[in-house]
Order: sequence, then structure tokens, then C-alpha cells
Amino acid sequence: MNIQTQEKPQTQVDETVMANAIRVLSMDAIEAANSGHPGAPMGLADVATVLFNRFLTLDPKNPDWPDRDRFVMSAGHGSMLVYAIHHLLGYEDMDADQLRNFRQMGSRTAGHPEYGHAMGIETTTGPLGQGVATSVGMALAERMLNARFGDDLVDHYTYVLAGDGCLMEGISHEAIDMAGHMGLGRLILFWDDNRITIDGATDLSTSMDQGKRFEAAGWHVQAIDGHDTDAIAKAIEAARADKRPSMIACRTVIGKGAPNKAGSHKVHGAPLGADEIAATREALNWPHAPFEVPGEVRDAWRQIAQRGAEAQTAWRKRKAVHAKAEAFDIAHAAPDAVALNAAMTAYKHKLSADLPKVATRKASEMALEVVNGTLPNMAGGSADLTGSNNTKTSAMRPVSRDDYSGDYIHYGIREHGMAAAMNGIALHRGLIPYGGTFLAFADYCRPAIRLSALMNVPVTYVMTHDSIGLGEDGPTHQPVETVASLRAMPNLTVIRPMDAVETAEAWQIAATSAGTPTLLVLSRQNLPCLRTRHTDQNLTAKGAYVIYEPEGGRDVTLIGTGSEVEIAMEASKMLASEGIRAAVISAPSFELFAQQDPEYRAAIRGCAPRVGIEAAVRQGWCVFLERSDGFVGMTGFGASAPAPELYRHFNITPEAVVASAKRQISDQN
Amino acid sequence: MNIQTQEKPQTQVDETVMANAIRVLSMDAIEAANSGHPGAPMGLADVATVLFNRFLTLDPKNPDWPDRDRFVMSAGHGSMLVYAIHHLLGYEDMDADQLRNFRQMGSRTAGHPEYGHAMGIETTTGPLGQGVATSVGMALAERMLNARFGDDLVDHYTYVLAGDGCLMEGISHEAIDMAGHMGLGRLILFWDDNRITIDGATDLSTSMDQGKRFEAAGWHVQAIDGHDTDAIAKAIEAARADKRPSMIACRTVIGKGAPNKAGSHKVHGAPLGADEIAATREALNWPHAPFEVPGEVRDAWRQIAQRGAEAQTAWRKRKAVHAKAEAFDIAHAAPDAVALNAAMTAYKHKLSADLPKVATRKASEMALEVVNGTLPNMAGGSADLTGSNNTKTSAMRPVSRDDYSGDYIHYGIREHGMAAAMNGIALHRGLIPYGGTFLAFADYCRPAIRLSALMNVPVTYVMTHDSIGLGEDGPTHQPVETVASLRAMPNLTVIRPMDAVETAEAWQIAATSAGTPTLLVLSRQNLPCLRTRHTDQNLTAKGAYVIYEPEGGRDVTLIGTGSEVEIAMEASKMLASEGIRAAVISAPSFELFAQQDPEYRAAIRGCAPRVGIEAAVRQGWCVFLERSDGFVGMTGFGASAPAPELYRHFNITPEAVVASAKRQISDQN
Repeated sequence: MNIQTQEKPQTQVDETVMANAIRVLSMDAIEAANSGHPGAPMGLADVATVLFNRFLTLDPKNPDWPDRDRFVMSAGHGSMLVYAIHHLLGYEDMDADQLRNFRQMGSRTAGHPEYGHAMGIETTTGPLGQGVATSVGMALAERMLNARFGDDLVDHYTYVLAGDGCLMEGISHEAIDMAGHMGLGRLILFWDDNRITIDGATDLSTSMDQGKRFEAAGWHVQAIDGHDTDAIAKAIEAARADKRPSMIACRTVIGKGAPNKAGSHKVHGAPLGADEIAATREALNWPHAPFEVPGEVRDAWRQIAQRGAEAQTAWRKRKAVHAKAEAFDIAHAAPDAVALNAAMTAYKHKLSADLPKVATRKASEMALEVVNGTLPNMAGGSADLTGSNNTKTSAMRPVSRDDYSGDYIHYGIREHGMAAAMNGIALHRGLIPYGGTFLAFADYCRPAIRLSALMNVPVTYVMTHDSIGLGEDGPTHQPVETVASLRAMPNLTVIRPMDAVETAEAWQIAATSAGTPTLLVLSRQNLPCLRTRHTDQNLTAKGAYVIYEPEGGRDVTLIGTGSEVEIAMEASKMLASEGIRAAVISAPSFELFAQQDPEYRAAIRGCAPRVGIEAAVRQGWCVFLERSDGFVGMTGFGASAPAPELYRHFNITPEAVVASAKRQISDQN
Repeated sequence: MNIQTQEKPQTQVDETVMANAIRVLSMDAIEAANSGHPGAPMGLADVATVLFNRFLTLDPKNPDWPDRDRFVMSAGHGSMLVYAIHHLLGYEDMDADQLRNFRQMGSRTAGHPEYGHAMGIETTTGPLGQGVATSVGMALAERMLNARFGDDLVDHYTYVLAGDGCLMEGISHEAIDMAGHMGLGRLILFWDDNRITIDGATDLSTSMDQGKRFEAAGWHVQAIDGHDTDAIAKAIEAARADKRPSMIACRTVIGKGAPNKAGSHKVHGAPLGADEIAATREALNWPHAPFEVPGEVRDAWRQIAQRGAEAQTAWRKRKAVHAKAEAFDIAHAAPDAVALNAAMTAYKHKLSADLPKVATRKASEMALEVVNGTLPNMAGGSADLTGSNNTKTSAMRPVSRDDYSGDYIHYGIREHGMAAAMNGIALHRGLIPYGGTFLAFADYCRPAIRLSALMNVPVTYVMTHDSIGLGEDGPTHQPVETVASLRAMPNLTVIRPMDAVETAEAWQIAATSAGTPTLLVLSRQNLPCLRTRHTDQNLTAKGAYVIYEPEGGRDVTLIGTGSEVEIAMEASKMLASEGIRAAVISAPSFELFAQQDPEYRAAIRGCAPRVGIEAAVRQGWCVFLERSDGFVGMTGFGASAPAPELYRHFNITPEAVVASAKRQISDQN
């Protein structure tokens, strides 16, 4: 078990003085930047100081040590709190120059904390509520890994600082319901109850009894004076002792320490100004120059790092002799791409022999059987659409508060919470998360998908019912613009496979991705297996490739994705019967295609006119099409009717492709 | 005041029999479609019957009567409940053939209730939680209009049926917090507490104490047996009597009436099948053929319509002699486009004289002063960014539970709840809603924006801080793909104005839009006024137009939007100094441009090579650009630094445009 001191360490420096170091570093850095949010770091300095000083176990020299406590600043605009603490703890990448260059080009001290941008930042925050929901995933991963590897290897806490904004956002509801239900007792959330938002007092917009709300979700709740260091410590002790997740309402004064501006919304998001900074220095009895920290204060903070280093050393010793050390390392290493490739190749051989006609959502389940049978640490789930998303493979068992050893998470009807929790699981490391919902509801989790992409975390989104092909549920459930909107996002690999083989290849890409999330776009309806000849090569990884090349050159090139490749193939045959040579390209991933070399891309696109086919809007197709090329797809929202009728109604048919192809050819001549 | 009977009407038919008509019509229609969700309509039939029979006031012959009660089926998959009731009430567009053709092409009985698709559907539901949040907007609009026009004209209730899914979604948190804070006592929510979700029992994924949760938000809470008609009636009476919004937890059996399948998740989303349908007929003692309703049952339902018709007549009489009748009609009519045009023309004259250099968010506030000064029923707001979004004009007063006569809504840190509430306000009619947040957080409210577009409701989204130009807040707050993702959405007009004049024209388009929501994309940073010569014509309505045409023809065409038009103009001057003739196009709205005739579009695009300039990804630019044309913009996420440095860092500069233009010209030669 971690060595986590609950006694106040013996130093010569009072915790309030340690906290004042945070306050002054924050206000000075924000003043230097002439931009930033002093209110939260100054208001939360006491809470953070007690948490770090007496409880949090981190080793700044080994910032990625797996059994460290996790600290999430969900109120990300208070980033200077984090940077000040990391500076005081002695993170090697956080010297005083970084603070001086807060929010400047090239510094590590970005406006909001960014994962990967500086050591020890556990997740990117700023979009409010995300930190709360991400921390639920971290705390869940901790329990799941604890169930696998035991207390000696996995035994840590997740602490979150959240503001009023975090708790007003809807995602916080999904997160706290999930945490309460899952019994995540090692999740401790501090609510910065400062009663101030940007527009003014919180009572302008909310009357929520937060304590009662958290209790309703099954949390342990306390309320304290957020500037009383002993009260803070006692509350954290009680929170750790309780089996439920804990919320500690910390009544604070925003901008505490600034004698004239504290307690007002004016201190939320603007520098204090020279006069108020001078007054604050005086009030805090802090005569030191900007970014100068007295030795004894620095020493007090360094003792925290020292305690963490000792804990890390002890953990390493325990692990060295632990029976599960190897399995632990495997779970925390990159997935075994060689083993997965071998298994997938064998599976693809079988598919080429069987040619199953299945929906790609079903093909996804089949491929997942291979993935989950090969990689030991997949963590699946769905936002209450398990049977529709086909996300639960045969050997998977649900995770529950009574048994964390399972590997399937019933995320409930909480797409946003699921996506953020998956970010947290991926960031925690040790498990590889994927989760399902309907593609139309990608919109519900888009802010968390964006964070997957921004943070480079390899979460896999399994999004089924991908077009009007879902039929009767109608336009609310029919994605039309959704694929385009996701292709617009940087660093997200969107894959819309056409058959069981491409789906297998897509899963191979997703499960071994190191720094890019993958979003699988899967059909509800059955689709024929068009990849009839086995290739060892992962053709889906090319993004687009020829599946039919006519002899003697192309008159036209038909480019389809997913369920519409079948239509392209049919159209090609109809055109052939009229003597028109139509190549067919399957284009499962625009992003992967864009990464190929120019010669390959030019060869795929060809010189003949083109027709793109996708049951969605045209936006984004300029990866393949000239403006003059044809497109068979959607121009507006869908409708409620059986799928085959919808395809006819919206004119996404082989006949429409043939007509478009002929127009293209005749326009060219 | 409405005549709303709380006594059980004297009919010969028991309410349980009236409810069974809903059950049987629902199961038969779903069986005929071989698709649909019988569980909710059968489980909620008793609650709905009592609500309609004793309380709800509607006039099927005047489905848009302004003072009707609003009924929202938030659990939209239970659409057959609505269609069955509308059939029984005698809505003229809902005959038995519509039920027979449930979920079929061309029928009014879409898979989920769709606003505008059949009479009496108050809002489109299906994406869970939206109905709950939309109804908050309706209930708020009712109080705001009541404050303006009094009890004689505005005095109705909003009733919502919500399932477990609705209450698990995050948006429900934003909605109920807002409703409790605003004291919306005429909002009554029925929770279909059937303890079943798609994946199985609710205890797979939630342990929420919903009653306590709603109490925490300031709601009045009751719990009843959802099949006990008198208990239902008593609860509704108590809910109406209480000043707080009310939640009635109705313990129901999903699929109630189906003897073998009721109570199981199997009845949630699949037809019952012939055997179970026969067994249900037997169990309910309902020997009638499918879609046949006995005369006395039909009569009992028609009495409800009769009561509503009488109430409507009484209201009409009250209104005929009401002092505020004219003002009421003006508020409910289309906005006065002539008056607004006159005011805007005068304002534009002034701008052309003053040439103010302001951020377009500030220009938006200036234009809003004109709009709000001309149209009497604008309802503004912001998701806690009032000072940043510049959404509150000088005469606006906040709306609060103590005074609904204001016109500015502090939506709190609830982008999603705000967007859905604005849908509700627009659907209610009488007020024209707009609301602000940062553009990056469009992702938080995207599902509700999609419903604005799908429902054709003219909500205006004021989205500021529209690019890396926001500077130090960094990539979490910098939209890069956001504009493209919004342009992908059908029936949404996205406008990114370049200066104060275009911003004024954009507001004129937004405020007078009849069936299309508008999303304004506005800068944080100051921008020069480039429209130096006044035009009466609204050039922004063309989507794109020439702002500089060189003499003697074009060597290259530079096309910019928003803050990047300034860069294009600068580049054009630099090119001119080298003898290169560069036209400059301002392209504030791709959607409006796409609606122009082909000749106009061709003339704007021109025959010379082109360079697009936008501090965002290129996706969507094929409206203007060939694949071979140049583009100066973003290819990935932004960074945290002062804005001018970011523009240089990401190479979005006049120099970069000049270089791209020269490459284009030389490639062509």
C-alpha cells in the first residue's frame, strides 16, 4: 500500500504560508501574461496545499509512476494553481521562467492545463465538467486494475478540484451518477464553493443544493471552510475512510488574499493589476520579488516530493518481487501488435472463405472476439445499447461495485459521461477502452471526443446505425452530417468499413493506435463481404484502395464508403453491361488516405471523372472529388421508413450512380 | 383563465378502458410496422389518460391555439402513445390509416414524434433528455408572456413524460436546475419509473435517488403507482397547486397489459408478436379488430377535445376585448421585417460614416441594440458569458423567478440546456430567443442545435471567440474544426461576418428568419470596418460578394471570411504593388452563397485561381475552391499564446496569402 501521511508533516512553515506561495506565484504569472484567471488558484490554494502536503502521493522525478495518486484540476482556467504547485514541488520542466512565460508561445504553461504539454498534467481541462467526468474513468480504472493486480501494485486515489461551472454542466450529472453507482470510494471531489460565476453571483443562475444532489447519487458529502487547513485535512481523512465517492464542499473566497478584489466576479478572469498585487503582497506579508520563493517555503513543498519519491521506491521494491509484475507491465505497455496481427490475419483468411453477409456492427463484434481474445486488457462498454452496438463479446463480464474484475462497463444512457470516462481510463493506463452508441449521438459526446483527439489518447468509439440505413427511427436517429463533422476534427481517425474484412482491419488499426482515437462508423443493416480475396496487408490502413479495376483503363471512378460500396459495385456492373469501364474504390478512412504519398493518392483518384457515393452530405469529399465530379448522397435530413425505401426515396441507388457516371463522362467529352 | 377540469368527467367509460385503447392501438401499429417501442406507450397509458382526461386543455381543431397546454413526450421512442391519443382525440390528420402506416414512408406517424410532421406535436423528441430541456423553455416562455399579457391571455401548463434515459442524460441536470431556479411551477414532469433500460434493469447502470435529486434542484416531488388513476389525478392536482416545478415519479410496469412480456426489457423496443398480441387482447378484454375503437371509448376521448374547444372559444372571447390583444398578436406574428430593415439601413449608414474598428462580438451588441429596439419580443441570454458574448443590450433586464417581465436570461454554465430551452421558447412562440457562448462550446449544445435545424425553428446562436484569434486560452477554447462541423449541418445558416456592417446584416437575417436557425460566428479581437460604402442591399444575404475587384481583370481571387478578410485585403494590396491583380471576396455564409443562382456563384468564384483564407480547417471550402486552389488556414489544433503570435505561428498572414497566390498563378501558367 502507498505510504500516505495523514499527519501534518513537521516543517517550520505553516500551510497557510505554503498556500500563499501558490497565491503569489499565480497572481504574478497572470500579471506578467496580462491574461488568466487568478480567482480559482488564490481561492483554492489552502485546499490544494493541505491535499498535497498531507495526502497526495506523487513523485515529480517519476511523473508517470503507475501507482501515483491522480490530481485533476477540473476548473482548468485555474491552471496557475497546477503550474505553481509543480514549480514548488520541483518538476524539472517547470522552472520560474515557465511561470514568467505563462500563456506565451512555446511555454509549457498553457492557458489551460494540457495533457502531454507539461509533466504531471493528468488530463486536459478547460471545457467545464470534463475533468470531473474524466476522473470517474481514472477512478474506475484504478479499481479494475486493483481487482486484477491487488493492493500492492494498485492502490491510489483520484482527487478532483471542481468549480461551480463544472457542476452546472450536464456532464457532471452523468459522471456523479456513474461514480455513485460504481461505488468509486477512492474518488474525492472538492467543490470550490465560492458562489461566483463570470456573470456574477451564482444565485443569478442556480439554486442547486449540491450536497443533497451528490447524496442522491450515492456520494458521501461534507461541507467545510475551505480556508481552514485542519478542517480540510479532517474532511479528506473522512472522505478516504468512507466507501462511497466523496464530495467536499469547500466554502471559499474567490481570489482570497487580494484585499480589495477577493470575493468578486472581477477577480475570476482578469489580472489583479499592479496596485492590487502590491496590496496583496502586503496583506499576505510576502515581501519577496515576483517568482522568488523563500528557501523554507520551497523546502516545505519539496518534502512532499520527497515523501512521494519514497513511496515510489517502496512500490518499485514490492513490484520487483510481485508474482503479477510481468502481467502488470504487459497491461501498461503498448498492445502486442504482432500477436494481434497474427490473430487478425488468421481471422481474415476465415472471412475470405466464409464471406459472411453481416451488418458491420455485427462484424465489429466478430472482430472484437479476436481483439479481446488476444489483448488481455480491453475494457468494453456501451451507453445502454449493448445489443445494438454489439460491443460485448462472449467472454466479457460486467464491471460492478461488487466485482471490479469484469471488463464490460454498462455506461448507462450517458454518451458524454462514457466518452469522458474512456478518456480517463486511457489516461490512467493499464486498460484499453472502447464504447458504443448510435452514430447520431456522437453529437452528445463530441466535447469529450475532441479531448481524446487533442490529448492523443487512443480511445475507440464504436458508433453504429450509421445512416438512413437504420430505417424507421427516422431523422433524429439518422446521421447525415455526422460523419463529415467528425472528419473535420484533427487527429481523429474515422473509419467506415464496407464489410467484415474491412471491419476487422479497422479494429486492428484502432486497438493498436498509439496516439490517435479511432471512431468506427458501422451499419445497422447487413452488407455482403466484398473483399473476396485474402490479403495479409491491412488495406483499410491505406484509407482507400481499388476493389475493382476494369481492364483497359477507366472511363469513370466510383468511390464509396461503408454500405455504399455495394451500390458502387452494382453500378459498376450495370455500367459494364453498357460498355462503360467503371473502377470501384473503397474509401473507409479519409484521414488515413490523406496520409498516403501523393503518387498513391493520385493513382487511386485516377484521371477519369469520379462519382462519390455515401449516404451522407458531400462536405469533406474534396479529398477525392473535384468540384465538377458527381456525388450520390444526402442533401438534407432523413425520414422515417424502412431502409430500402429510404435509399430509393433519397435516390442513393445503383441506378442513380449509373446516371451520375454517365453525366460525368458526357460532361467531360 | 383556462377552464381546466380537475373533476373526473362523467362518462360511461372507465379511464382504464380509455387507456387500454392507447395500449391496443400502440401494439397493433407497432406490429403492423414490425418496428417500434410498445413498452413506453403501454406502461404510460394510464398516466397519459388521466392527464388528458382531467387536466390537459387542447383543441384539436385549433392545434396552435396559443394558450393551449403543452404536452411533450420526451421519451420520444414511445411515439405511438402520442399518435394513439391524437387519433382518439380526433386530430384530423391522424386517422386510422396513419396508425396502420406507422413508421412508413409518407405517413405522419414517424418513428419519433416530429414537430411540424403531424398536428399537435409540440417538439421533436427521440434524442433523450431533449424533451425535458425543451419543455423548460416552453414553461419559461409561458411565464414571461404571462408577465407581459396577464392571466386572461397566457395561463397554461407544460407537461412532460420522461423515461429513465431522459433523466440519465446530462442535459436533464441542466434543465431541472434551471427550472428549479426559475421557479417554473407550471412545469410538471412525469417520470416513467419502470426500472428498465435497453440493456436490462436500471440497476445495471444507475443508483440515483431521483426524488432526492429533483428536491435538490428545488422541485416538488411525489411518488405514485402509475397505474392507479385516482392517485395519478391527486398527484397532478397537488403538482398544480405547488409553486415549484413538480416531478411525479410514476412507478409503472413497462409494456403493462401484455401478460407474458410486461416488465421486461424485451418489450422496450420490439413488436410483441402475434401470440402476445392475442394474449394481450384477451387479458385486456379487448375483442375489437386492430384499429377499431368502440364508439363509447371514442366518445370519452372526444369529450376531452370538446372541453378544449370550449376553453379555446372562451379564450378567444376574452382576447377579443382585451387591451393587449394587438400587442399579443404582434408578438405571435412574424417579426416586422420592414421596420427592422428601416432601422438597420439607418444604422448601416451610420456605420459607413463612423467605420468603427470593433470585435464582431461588440458589433453584434451594437446591432442587437437596433434589433432589440425595433422588435418588441426578443429574449436574449448567455451561458454565463454575458460580458464576453456581448449579448445583453442596454435596456435589457434579467428574468428571474421574482420577475418574469425581463428579457434577458442568465442561462448559467449550461450551453446544452440553453440551446434546448431556446428551442422551447421558439416553439412556444411569442418570443424570439437568442443566446451566447464561445464557439468552441458549440459542441456542448450540438444535439439541440441539430433539433433547431431539424424542426425549422429560428433560434439564433451567438458564438464568439471564433478562432485562434482568442489567443491565450489555448486549444481547448480555440475552434478549428467547429465552423466546418456546423456548416455540415442541414438547414443551419452559419454566418461569420468580417466587420460591423456584415454583423448588422447578419443580425437582420437572423432576426427575421422564419424556418432556419442562424449561428453567428464572431471574433474576440477588433476588426476594421471594411464595408466603407453604404449599400441598402443586405450583401451578407448573398453569402459571398466582391469587396475589391481590380481593374482589368483578375490574376487571382482571394476569398476570406470573418477576421481573415482583413488579411485578404492586405495581401491584395501587397500583390498589387507587384503588379498582380487580386480580387477579394468576403464570404460570410457558405449556405447563403449556395442558395444563389449559378451565374452569380460562377462570377464570384471567377476563372482565375483562388486562395481561401480562414483560421480553421479547409473542409467545406469546396463551395468556393477547386482541389488545386490554395488555402491559408489551420490543419490541426491551436495553441496558447497572444493572438498576433498565433497568427504568425500558424502562418495565417498576408505574406502567406501572397505566397499562396503566387504559387497558384505560377502553377496555372
